[in-house]
Amino acid sequence: MPAQVIVLNGGSSSGKSGIARCLQTVLPGPWLALGTDTLVEALPPALRTAGDAAGDGIGFADDGEVSVGPAFRAVEAAWIGGVAAMARAGARIVVDEVFLGGAHSQRRWQRALGGLPVLWVGVRCEAAVAAGREIARGDRTAGMAAAQADLVHRGVTYDLEVDTTRTEAMECARTIAARVG
Amino acid sequence: MPAQVIVLNGGSSSGKSGIARCLQTVLPGPWLALGTDTLVEALPPALRTAGDAAGDGIGFADDGEVSVGPAFRAVEAAWIGGVAAMARAGARIVVDEVFLGGAHSQRRWQRALGGLPVLWVGVRCEAAVAAGREIARGDRTAGMAAAQADLVHRGVTYDLEVDTTRTEAMECARTIAARVG
Amino acid sequence: MPAQVIVLNGGSSSGKSGIARCLQTVLPGPWLALGTDTLVEALPPALRTAGDAAGDGIGFADDGEVSVGPAFRAVEAAWIGGVAAMARAGARIVVDEVFLGGAHSQRRWQRALGGLPVLWVGVRCEAAVAAGREIARGDRTAGMAAAQADLVHRGVTYDLEVDTTRTEAMECARTIAARVG
Amino acid sequence: MPAQVIVLNGGSSSGKSGIARCLQTVLPGPWLALGTDTLVEALPPALRTAGDAAGDGIGFADDGEVSVGPAFRAVEAAWIGGVAAMARAGARIVVDEVFLGGAHSQRRWQRALGGLPVLWVGVRCEAAVAAGREIARGDRTAGMAAAQADLVHRGVTYDLEVDTTRTEAMECARTIAARVG
Repeated sequence: MPAQVIVLNGGSSSGKSGIARCLQTVLPGPWLALGTDTLVEALPPALRTAGDAAGDGIGFADDGEVSVGPAFRAVEAAWIGGVAAMARAGARIVVDEVFLGGAHSQRRWQRALGGLPVLWVGVRCEAAVAAGREIARGDRTAGMAAAQADLVHRGVTYDLEVDTTRTEAMECARTIAARVG
Repeated sequence: MPAQVIVLNGGSSSGKSGIARCLQTVLPGPWLALGTDTLVEALPPALRTAGDAAGDGIGFADDGEVSVGPAFRAVEAAWIGGVAAMARAGARIVVDEVFLGGAHSQRRWQRALGGLPVLWVGVRCEAAVAAGREIARGDRTAGMAAAQADLVHRGVTYDLEVDTTRTEAMECARTIAARVG
Repeated sequence: MPAQVIVLNGGSSSGKSGIARCLQTVLPGPWLALGTDTLVEALPPALRTAGDAAGDGIGFADDGEVSVGPAFRAVEAAWIGGVAAMARAGARIVVDEVFLGGAHSQRRWQRALGGLPVLWVGVRCEAAVAAGREIARGDRTAGMAAAQADLVHRGVTYDLEVDTTRTEAMECARTIAARVG
Repeated sequence: MPAQVIVLNGGSSSGKSGIARCLQTVLPGPWLALGTDTLVEALPPALRTAGDAAGDGIGFADDGEVSVGPAFRAVEAAWIGGVAAMARAGARIVVDEVFLGGAHSQRRWQRALGGLPVLWVGVRCEAAVAAGREIARGDRTAGMAAAQADLVHRGVTYDLEVDTTRTEAMECARTIAARVG
């Protein structure tokens, strides 16, 4: 059964969004690209806090640590359920995610996507390289790439893994597309 | 029963997104802001076409006309269903929409949101003023504001209407918030 | 002698950039729009600091206070000189500025623009209205609009002033354009 | 004499802007990053035209061809002169450029920068790789990367060249920084 949802999990600046856009180009038929960034943009400012204290929402500390509180977790659960409902309604979706809670985050998505054909993809990038790309792109809090490079993969199981350290996003996308079925 | 979904419908540059952000600030508890822009950004480039011919996706012509094809309608239906599922899962959502099909577009949302407490809000702005703001913001195809100012309200029924022509987004948001219940 | 440089000075979220874009549309011939935002984007990240301490560069505190240090002042001086040189080389320029130092900031620009025909325009907006628009636009540190609304006009002299509190950007632009000569 | 201006020339999606941001991080002291994108953003909409005909300004055709007309050339000349004036006033500047006219474009900058210590850097990227990155970034007209990959280097002379095809932006930046003197 061909995958209808592709979940890309990787740290900040590992290249997930670029792979998602390439997948939209190389896969036949329309695929939506949704992810953590979509949700964070949809949040009220009060739940998107800079500075050290995450409090209730999602906090981006100066050193790149990201922490999440109960109010964020609640809207995230509804978000995940809604993305799953879009897939059940027939949409094909590339989900571009950062599993800050590792295996625990994956289980939340697994429960929501239960019964749907899903391709789980790990997007790796060496921490030092991701940190350099974070500086090059210039729109992210410095330190997020390094802080998340390994963290987000802890205990997560994948159907396949790609590594952007020395492989272009487009080539990673072709590898993934070949496994969609 | 207090509204759990607020649907803002209005033409391009009528001020919906600004009202949505103000609502997120003045309403108690977290509300997500999602809308047409979120969906358009999630689309594959092949469905987001510039130029005259919309073809299968959504097309933005040089004169500001927006046309949509069957492939866009299909993913849009899944999107609407997913947003409704997020609300059913407990999220409170401000939906920032452009009913290009007027009453027909509203019926699509009504069917999806059936059973949920929804506040339907018309966001009006005089065409000439919206056209001026379109130039002032500088990031939209010229002509969209004028083309959509009346079109999107045809046959649509509202719980309340606001008019941004001479009223600030924040004041509109307070008026809407007072009706959320 | 028709003005070749239009300096718009006003607080954050007072509507300067919108007026600048409208001026580019209503004025005959091409006018460049440059300003504080252009400079801030050109700065190295180390001079664009969030948090309380401005240090050497430009700092955006959580409460909306903006403070600038000696390294910022040095590059700003070169920037101002370069913008003046563009005008001397024949370009017509709308400068979109925030005179954090009031009259002192104006003198820096006056010295650089000496001999050029300049139209000095104050862009006013009531603090409460600007603060609401800051929330509506959603991309600025909360508090900047209120902190700067009066501050930036202290001791500054203008050829004309516009007030966006109850006047559209396009109408302000037409008023200004009528004075360009 | 240490370089005070670094001119990076390369095609669209060759990685110039990323290198510029990395340079701002690795070079001692503050360097401004300015370039073609800064100028294009400062242009009036009438000079920034989509579609096939460039007319007077700068035109981005659907196939990625970029063409420029006399009005664009006039403001560009003033812009180049102004950037040079910023350097003469003491600013250190990374110029991120696309020499659409090859050697002819370089001569324009050489004349303006005459007497200043300049480091001329060619930023290469294999056309196929740049085209893939153009898709991955998702914010550029498809085809620009391929159309410009070789074109912009015709007849241009460099102090050094970097190639981002298999080298990270940060590593290219370190190579360049080592030559700044």
